[in-house]
Amino acid sequence: MKPCEEEEEEGGAAAAGGGGGGGGDPWKECAEVAVQLALRAGQVIRKALTEEKQVSTKTSAADLVTETDHFVENLIISVLKEKFPSHRFIAEESTAAGSKCVLTDSPTWIIDPVDGTCNFVHRFPTVAVSIGFAVNKELEFGVIYHCTEERLYTGRRGQGAFCNDKRLQVSKETDISKALILTEIGPKRDPATLKLFLGNIERLLKAQAHGVRVIGSSTLALCHLASGAADAYYQFGLHCWDLAAATVIIREAGGTVIDTSGGPLDLMSCRVIAAGTREMAMFIAQEIQTIYYRRDDEN
Amino acid sequence: MKPCEEEEEEGGAAAAGGGGGGGGDPWKECAEVAVQLALRAGQVIRKALTEEKQVSTKTSAADLVTETDHFVENLIISVLKEKFPSHRFIAEESTAAGSKCVLTDSPTWIIDPVDGTCNFVHRFPTVAVSIGFAVNKELEFGVIYHCTEERLYTGRRGQGAFCNDKRLQVSKETDISKALILTEIGPKRDPATLKLFLGNIERLLKAQAHGVRVIGSSTLALCHLASGAADAYYQFGLHCWDLAAATVIIREAGGTVIDTSGGPLDLMSCRVIAAGTREMAMFIAQEIQTIYYRRDDEN
Repeated sequence: MKPCEEEEEEGGAAAAGGGGGGGGDPWKECAEVAVQLALRAGQVIRKALTEEKQVSTKTSAADLVTETDHFVENLIISVLKEKFPSHRFIAEESTAAGSKCVLTDSPTWIIDPVDGTCNFVHRFPTVAVSIGFAVNKELEFGVIYHCTEERLYTGRRGQGAFCNDKRLQVSKETDISKALILTEIGPKRDPATLKLFLGNIERLLKAQAHGVRVIGSSTLALCHLASGAADAYYQFGLHCWDLAAATVIIREAGGTVIDTSGGPLDLMSCRVIAAGTREMAMFIAQEIQTIYYRRDDEN
Repeated sequence: MKPCEEEEEEGGAAAAGGGGGGGGDPWKECAEVAVQLALRAGQVIRKALTEEKQVSTKTSAADLVTETDHFVENLIISVLKEKFPSHRFIAEESTAAGSKCVLTDSPTWIIDPVDGTCNFVHRFPTVAVSIGFAVNKELEFGVIYHCTEERLYTGRRGQGAFCNDKRLQVSKETDISKALILTEIGPKRDPATLKLFLGNIERLLKAQAHGVRVIGSSTLALCHLASGAADAYYQFGLHCWDLAAATVIIREAGGTVIDTSGGPLDLMSCRVIAAGTREMAMFIAQEIQTIYYRRDDEN
């Protein structure tokens, strides 16, 4: 693995694996297993990137899934179930297949096996594995692995966020006219949704944002935000498995993750604003118009 | 350097450096020097990415320039002038400073020292050096170096295109409903331009394109196109230094590079469609509306 573009600092493995918390760290083993599984899943995805793919659609013609999504999700969950039989799971493809998506107080793994499936299908090299972990509905750690660039992003509650061995630090920008903004299109493509999606970009560009980027992976966009390479991210239509791991990483990098209304984040609400500063997040909240998506925990 | 995600094949260095053409290859040394300069410039940019930057604006508040753009352009041109005193140069920052941007029959280097300056300013890791070379107004070779990912894209007329040691091959997709499309915003941000820019994205999404990506570097977007990771790219408001190197690379990877009208590419027209197939390029040409930019060779 190569280093990221931040100053080197000790602690990457600590943030991922539980670090020097000593004997009183109940989730150390879980965090270590998450890192190992993300790296193993990444290997599978890198290999699959070069091969022919069987592509199916889910909620829309632009909502894609491949055998690799299923294979990687099964791989991750089967290992975790064996190691931690009492834990619960929320994962993208299991949910698509009908599993309930409800966050309880139990230790819960929240997994996106292949984030950026459309990129993956096209071999566009912005594809990640995302593994988050919550206990008592509180996010404990997150691991995101950018498979093709071999960058491992980790965040552990109270222990910082890292890309490989470099500590992550969000941008301190508060002025939209100096900001780089990230967003994603979302799966709905009806004319009214497209108007709102493009209208939001128009508002931010008219507010003189330096630029808007759309890279096709919510989790990696959120990792760029955590690393200070962008000043804000917003999206409607992403899911709890896109958000869980990234939220820990961003908060541990000093960032803000809130609801698009400006209120507290609701992991199941399918909408988010993340920013380096609270001022930037609130500015975005005031500018953008809501695009309605069903909640993840709605029947 | 690490390999790209394509099958390994001999010839990367050949495409870059002139290869086995033997004694009859007049531009072999030029192509070799271009590779060495792109790698050296990339080192400078990687180091500068981590440092504080002095940012100025050019044609608009979103058209940025830093000391690094100037430093790298001077570095490249000073070496080339010493080695090839009779050659001509077209380069981004020299043009901004008032140099004429005219392509003659003389051997001409066409240089973008830092493509993705806005990304560079934000440390968003999508930044490249681009060096193209034309003789008798015909593009002979192109070298694009993705600095942060250490990917060197090279194309040599008649000798193929490569990313590091892997041969590049464009996508064969002809159906927009299976296509991933790339574009960039361009420097103009007036309301009429934004309407056209967003309207073009809307048309392609309504035509059921899988997705549209905006990564903030024209040259790297064009390299993704060359590698088959996207099916089409279009833009209004890019420059000959964004296009020169990439055009050789795409054509040598089997792709099409045309004017947005559907006619032949005009390197100075500040507009382009590139695609894996002619059908895809012509579909885009019919769908999108023109955004007017001044030509590069207009006084």
